[in-house]
Amino acid sequence: MSRINILKQKAFEQKGFDGFLIINSANMYYLSGTQGASCLLIPKKGQSIVYVYSVNYEGVKAEAKGFDVEMMKRGENLMEKVAKQAKACSIKKLAVDTIGAESYKTLMKNLRGNVKLKLRNDLVSELRSVKDAQELELMRKAGELTSVGMKAAQETIRAGVTEIEVAAEIEYAMRKELSWGTAFETSVASGLHSTYPHGGCTERKIRKGDLVVVDIGAVYRRYCSDMTRTFVAGKPTAKQQKLYEIVKAAHDAAHEAIKPRAKAKDADTAAREVIEKAGYGKHFVHGLGHGVGIEVHEAPTLNQASKEKLTVGNVVTNEPGIYLVGFGGIRIEDSELVQKREAQKLTKGPYTLETTG
Amino acid sequence: MSRINILKQKAFEQKGFDGFLIINSANMYYLSGTQGASCLLIPKKGQSIVYVYSVNYEGVKAEAKGFDVEMMKRGENLMEKVAKQAKACSIKKLAVDTIGAESYKTLMKNLRGNVKLKLRNDLVSELRSVKDAQELELMRKAGELTSVGMKAAQETIRAGVTEIEVAAEIEYAMRKELSWGTAFETSVASGLHSTYPHGGCTERKIRKGDLVVVDIGAVYRRYCSDMTRTFVAGKPTAKQQKLYEIVKAAHDAAHEAIKPRAKAKDADTAAREVIEKAGYGKHFVHGLGHGVGIEVHEAPTLNQASKEKLTVGNVVTNEPGIYLVGFGGIRIEDSELVQKREAQKLTKGPYTLETTG
Repeated sequence: MSRINILKQKAFEQKGFDGFLIINSANMYYLSGTQGASCLLIPKKGQSIVYVYSVNYEGVKAEAKGFDVEMMKRGENLMEKVAKQAKACSIKKLAVDTIGAESYKTLMKNLRGNVKLKLRNDLVSELRSVKDAQELELMRKAGELTSVGMKAAQETIRAGVTEIEVAAEIEYAMRKELSWGTAFETSVASGLHSTYPHGGCTERKIRKGDLVVVDIGAVYRRYCSDMTRTFVAGKPTAKQQKLYEIVKAAHDAAHEAIKPRAKAKDADTAAREVIEKAGYGKHFVHGLGHGVGIEVHEAPTLNQASKEKLTVGNVVTNEPGIYLVGFGGIRIEDSELVQKREAQKLTKGPYTLETTG
Repeated sequence: MSRINILKQKAFEQKGFDGFLIINSANMYYLSGTQGASCLLIPKKGQSIVYVYSVNYEGVKAEAKGFDVEMMKRGENLMEKVAKQAKACSIKKLAVDTIGAESYKTLMKNLRGNVKLKLRNDLVSELRSVKDAQELELMRKAGELTSVGMKAAQETIRAGVTEIEVAAEIEYAMRKELSWGTAFETSVASGLHSTYPHGGCTERKIRKGDLVVVDIGAVYRRYCSDMTRTFVAGKPTAKQQKLYEIVKAAHDAAHEAIKPRAKAKDADTAAREVIEKAGYGKHFVHGLGHGVGIEVHEAPTLNQASKEKLTVGNVVTNEPGIYLVGFGGIRIEDSELVQKREAQKLTKGPYTLETTG
C-alpha cells in the first residue's frame, strides 16, 4: 500500500477525519516525493492536490507523480484556496500536520465554522518513524558517509587547527563519497566550546589537551544521519579518560535497552543511571536521543518525558553526554536501527579519545 | 541605542504594545546575541527574560549578556510560563513575532482573555532589514567567501564531473577561507535540472553542453550571503549565449533600480520588462529577490506583490532568471547593498557562461 493510502486508512478509517492537510515539507516529501510544494490536501473523497508557487511548478510536476498539481496565481491566498477546496470535497473534519498561527487563523476564518480542524502531526510522524526497506537502504548509506566524515575528523584534529578547518575536511570527505549535504550544521566544538552540546564551529584554534566534540551528519537522497565522537588533541588526561569511560558505559547500556516494545523513556533511563551512579547525573543535560530520517530530529523522542514505545524499523540516536563547566564536554552518539534482536548501528567508528592525525 | 531598545521604542512607544514575545531564533540572535533559547519575553516594565532548556542553558548564559536567563524545568510548558510572566509584568497588549498554531492556542488559553495578542513579526523584520556597520562588515566577508566558492565552481565544472563533486569543491574552498557554513543547500543544477530554480545537487554527471546553475551562500559569524552564476560545460551555443545576455541585461536593469526610496516592486519590474520584451516573460517564474542577513530569506521582498520601499542599509538579492522546459535555465544573482548612490555588490564574480577548468 502506498504511504498516502496508509495515512488515509489511519486518519480516515480509524480516526474519523475526512481530509488531511500536509504543510510540513518533510511530510510532503514522504507522502508525495516532492518537497517544493506549499501544501498537499488529501480529501477522503476525490483527488489529492499539491499546491505550488510558480517558482517550483515544473520541479514539483516532475516529482509528484499521480497527484494533481495546482499552480498558485499571483495574489492568491493559499489558505483561502485550501478552504474552498475543502468545501468542494465536503470535508467536515480536517487534520493538519503543522501550521503557523497566521495561516491557522486565515484557514479557520475561511472554513467559517463548517469544518472541525485538528492538529494531528502525530498521525504522520508515527508512520515516518517506522522506516521501510527502501528508506533503510538510504539511511545505511547516509550512515556510511557520516562514518567517513568522522574518520576525516579523527585524522585532522590536532593542536593549531581551527574548528572550521576540521569541518572543511569532514564535509569534503563526505561529499567526495557523494553525500547530498549535511543534515545539520557541522559541529566541531573544542576546549570550553565542548561544554555546550550545540557547539557549532568557529575560527577557534584547537589547543593541546582540548576535548573536541564532533557532531556530524551526512545526507543521502534526503535521508539524514547523526553521529558524535569526542577526541582529545594530544594525550588524554586521566580525568578525560575516566569521564569518557562513563559516557561509553552509558552509551552501551542504552544500546542494550534500544529494542522493540521497550519504552523510549527506559532507554534514556538506562544511560542516565550509569551517569548518575558515577556522580555526574546533573551534567547529562539533555535527553538520550531522537528519531532520524528525512529530518534529523523526528519521532520518537528518547527522554524522561517520552510516552512512545520503540518498534522494529525505528532509527534513533543514542547520545549520552557529560558537560562540566570550566572543563569541557564528552558525548558519544550513533544512529541505531531497532531490530528484533540487538539494535544495529548505522554509524560506525572506533570508540576512542585518540586522534590518528 | 541597543537593538532591543530600538524595538522597545518602536513597539511600545509608537505602537502601544507593552510586551514583545520573540520566538524566531534569528530575531532572538539579533536582539540578544544568542539563538539557543526557546523564547525571549520583553516586557515594557521589568527585566527581559530568556527561556532556555537545560541542553542549551550554559551556552545561552554565556552569550545572552544583560538578560535574565531562566532554565525550563522538566515537564514545564513554555507558553504557560510565558503567560504567567506576562501577567506578572502586567502586560495587556502583547506582540509576538512568529509562533506555531499549537503554541498560539496554548498561549491564548493561558492568557485567559486578559491580554491582546498580535502577530507583529514585521516590527522586528523591518529593523533587521536595515543593516548596521557591524553587520555589514560580516556580510561583506560572507560575500567574499561566497565569491571564492563561485570561483571554485567555475574551475571545477566540466563534462563527467557530478553535481555533488562541484559542490564539494565549492564548500571546501569557502571553508578553507573560514566560512562558518552554508546559508542554504548548495545548488549545482545541471542539464534539465537547471530548469528548476531550486535544483539542489545530485549524483548526476554533468554532460558536454549542459547549462549549470550554481546557487551558493557562505556564512560568516551567522550572516548569510547568496549568489548565483550559470556556466556551460564546454562551448556555449548561440541560443545559450543569447538567453544569457537577456538575463544579464535584466540583472543590470534591476541593479540600476535598486536604490533608496525606490519601490521594491519597481526593481522587479525593471528586470521583468527586459525579459518580457525579449519574449521570455512567462519563463521568469519567480520574484527578483529578497533581503539577506541572519537569514538567507528576510525582508524586504522584491517582487510584484511587494509593498516595501528600499532604503540605505538593505541588503537584497538581484536574481532574474529564464527557465525553458526541455532546454534548461539561466540565472544571475548578486547580493547588493542599497547605498545613497549605486548599489554595492557584496558578491563578486565575472559574468560569463564560460568555465576556467
